[in-house]
Amino acid sequence: MPKIAHHISIPGLQLDAASKVPAYKQVYGHISAAILSKQIRAGQRMPSSRVLAESIGVSRNIILLAYEQLELEGYITGSVGKGSFVSEHLDNDLPAIKHKKEKIATAENTQHIAYDYPVSKMFMDRESSKAGKKPFQNPEPALDHFPFKVWAKCAYKVFRELEFSHLNYNDAQGYFPLREAIASYLRTNRAVNCEAGQIIITNGTQQGLNLIASVLVKKGQQFWMEDPGYINAHAVFTHAGANAIHIPAGHDGFDVDWAKKNHPDASLVYITPSHQFPLGGTMPVGKRLLLTDWAAKNKMWIVEDDYDNEFQYTSGPIPSLQGLDQYKRVLYLGTFSKVLFPGLRIGYLVLPDEGMVKAFAHAKAFADRQNSITDQMILHEFMSNGHFTIHLRKMRVLYKKRQDVLLALINQYGEDLIRAEKQPGGMHLIAWLREDINDSEMAAYLNNNGVTVLPVSAYAVKFKPKPGLLLGYTAFNDKQLTDGLLKMITLIKAKIVKV
Amino acid sequence: MPKIAHHISIPGLQLDAASKVPAYKQVYGHISAAILSKQIRAGQRMPSSRVLAESIGVSRNIILLAYEQLELEGYITGSVGKGSFVSEHLDNDLPAIKHKKEKIATAENTQHIAYDYPVSKMFMDRESSKAGKKPFQNPEPALDHFPFKVWAKCAYKVFRELEFSHLNYNDAQGYFPLREAIASYLRTNRAVNCEAGQIIITNGTQQGLNLIASVLVKKGQQFWMEDPGYINAHAVFTHAGANAIHIPAGHDGFDVDWAKKNHPDASLVYITPSHQFPLGGTMPVGKRLLLTDWAAKNKMWIVEDDYDNEFQYTSGPIPSLQGLDQYKRVLYLGTFSKVLFPGLRIGYLVLPDEGMVKAFAHAKAFADRQNSITDQMILHEFMSNGHFTIHLRKMRVLYKKRQDVLLALINQYGEDLIRAEKQPGGMHLIAWLREDINDSEMAAYLNNNGVTVLPVSAYAVKFKPKPGLLLGYTAFNDKQLTDGLLKMITLIKAKIVKV
Repeated sequence: MPKIAHHISIPGLQLDAASKVPAYKQVYGHISAAILSKQIRAGQRMPSSRVLAESIGVSRNIILLAYEQLELEGYITGSVGKGSFVSEHLDNDLPAIKHKKEKIATAENTQHIAYDYPVSKMFMDRESSKAGKKPFQNPEPALDHFPFKVWAKCAYKVFRELEFSHLNYNDAQGYFPLREAIASYLRTNRAVNCEAGQIIITNGTQQGLNLIASVLVKKGQQFWMEDPGYINAHAVFTHAGANAIHIPAGHDGFDVDWAKKNHPDASLVYITPSHQFPLGGTMPVGKRLLLTDWAAKNKMWIVEDDYDNEFQYTSGPIPSLQGLDQYKRVLYLGTFSKVLFPGLRIGYLVLPDEGMVKAFAHAKAFADRQNSITDQMILHEFMSNGHFTIHLRKMRVLYKKRQDVLLALINQYGEDLIRAEKQPGGMHLIAWLREDINDSEMAAYLNNNGVTVLPVSAYAVKFKPKPGLLLGYTAFNDKQLTDGLLKMITLIKAKIVKV
Repeated sequence: MPKIAHHISIPGLQLDAASKVPAYKQVYGHISAAILSKQIRAGQRMPSSRVLAESIGVSRNIILLAYEQLELEGYITGSVGKGSFVSEHLDNDLPAIKHKKEKIATAENTQHIAYDYPVSKMFMDRESSKAGKKPFQNPEPALDHFPFKVWAKCAYKVFRELEFSHLNYNDAQGYFPLREAIASYLRTNRAVNCEAGQIIITNGTQQGLNLIASVLVKKGQQFWMEDPGYINAHAVFTHAGANAIHIPAGHDGFDVDWAKKNHPDASLVYITPSHQFPLGGTMPVGKRLLLTDWAAKNKMWIVEDDYDNEFQYTSGPIPSLQGLDQYKRVLYLGTFSKVLFPGLRIGYLVLPDEGMVKAFAHAKAFADRQNSITDQMILHEFMSNGHFTIHLRKMRVLYKKRQDVLLALINQYGEDLIRAEKQPGGMHLIAWLREDINDSEMAAYLNNNGVTVLPVSAYAVKFKPKPGLLLGYTAFNDKQLTDGLLKMITLIKAKIVKV
């Protein structure tokens, strides 16, 4: 028996002629809201399109469009000749839906979600640096010296010549011409043994570390880690389930003999041999050979993070450990965050062999398929036209000068409060404090008073380092360095007297 | 007692005046290689810089620079007045290093690395599509209709106005103006209830899925998955340790009642309610309410993937399930890969509350800190100037026409071999085969013969679907569609006759 319910009226349905929402959408929205809030009930017959159109003074077509969408989404069902009805299978036991704009809900739902990403506060607070960088934030490139016009010119060329074939999904390993440019640069400048086929383009070092963790790290596996060392690498590998073995590190890198003797079971090591982070030294060739030999004999993977080797002031860049290793046990990590700009999000991994390349290409595809294509093309343009080398050369000169300025300031004003040594490279100096001072407390106090510093101890886990403060100098001009340093010394004095 | 070893000679040291390698680097390279290969032994005294300079006819400064680098890297040690010596602590038991350029090593080292990324072949083979897309690759935007000039104009503006503050590390959640543009678009066009503060910018849907897995998925947890459904989501969640519960899905989405009854313990569900992938239907509002109600009562998270809802041809886009859910249980996933271009790598997540936003911002920072900044700025420029809406409108008209063309072709030439139904939206049709035909074998056969298709069964796990082939039509013009379809039908005929 066909339903012969009365036509229902649609309460309050009026169109807003001034609205940018199309008329049929307004009708649709009003009726669906009325159904959801149970002003109109399941099984009720809808007014015919002709009747409704007349009653609100619009063309019948508008009502037909609205009904079509309501039917498509299951609000109403209809059959020719019998009219449309509010769907029977709408569950009327459901509470009425309130349609209102809400601000973001507070965390009541998700308070219980344990997000245990060991992401440092520094890491998440980066945005605040937009307001105006303060000395001695580390490590920040001198972004005001970035060659904006040249970069823009490269970008124009890329966007002018962009073809539809570029826009589609592409090689997960990265844009091939860029990989060729990087390989050529690394061979010439870092003595890295590599071809474009060994390179995987990443969204920066952080993703590179995550890819390594996802391909190589197994739960419970041990890895050696310099102490003090780069805590973000520590965070990524331990998050993946590995156990960190902290190896005491000094100016000339970490103690390979101690590590071999005390923790021979580790199967991965993360190091910064060209420029130990944060202490700043270079691992001598003897230790390098000890390490590569041990790695070969013990099937250990060496992760070489060569994060800022471009900035060597007294010599050229230090040749990579990768180039010295004849056993193919090294995964080499590089980034453009320090030499160009962090917001670019382009880094790379150089892998030792085909099997590894295949595994990492899969891991990258699984993570996010590939890097953004146009950024890769712009960077390729920038490198292949020689701009990269020119920029590096300029920054090397600028940064060396800035280190000299800071060092002279420390020598002149540091008294017995802080001392520092000339560094052959890098983007920061360490201002060593008196041994009785807690660098972590001092750093917190300075940060609260407008001087941005990080304590050496923030990078140490098991072995207590001498107290010191990392002073990034590359992003600051002479005046900023001078004002910053004098302010810092005044603050330290006040603090020490108070203690 | 000071060493009084004889000065050693440096065998074969000659400079190449034509080389681009600086003279001091040539000296350094030659000597370090001689030390590594043990032509020069530990403890031997180096010739004085003056003597060596004279013997090879260069300025003494060049030799001093070379010695400085050799000392920095630990090859030699020196003291004023006593001369330089090859370092004692170089381990002479190490085998001699051979310095030669090698091609990429084969996988001997790493054959044993088990990379178990469930990345489909289709996924990794995308690059081959560069050579020239073939019908009926799915889903590909009509990239030859991409507004290159307008996009380039937006890019020029961004690069012209780029400031150094943009280049630094930025908000892990994504560029705020872009998030505002997306939120506004989603509120108006998808009935998504959201503010910019709820959005996390991702490198596309694949990263969005990984972030969800890393924040919400626990080992052994159950999740509902449409069957057939989007296999990449299945891959990401199971890779993270969750157990997939496959729920039979039809044209109107998956069977909520069946899922509730048979698998009430699941705490996550992944769905494509606006346009079921791959079947193409819309989940009716009754089912949507059933699901959100169940999710609220059972603390289940709903992942709504709204991947191509922009392309609805007979009505406007379907309002999101997120907008209907009053309980804040929905994580909404969107992407620009389908509506703009895949190589852009920008997608987004809309999260239900503050706690979730905080967790995901940390997860994103941990994964790769943030998206590339300039791409976000270009996209913001493109959206805020109305180009996005215009482009969508054009593509909607174009894609609708292309669907009509393909449908007409199938009706005219499909005979009893394939049939298809008009779809209200999306980027592909399903060509249903005779029920006795194995769609997977048929697809393999067609692919081998130059017709790119995917079988429906490739997306099914537990429930056998009717045999059919996914035909993407959006990227192909009338001639390509016609030629492709005729070729496909000829091939199917030949294959069936052979069987």
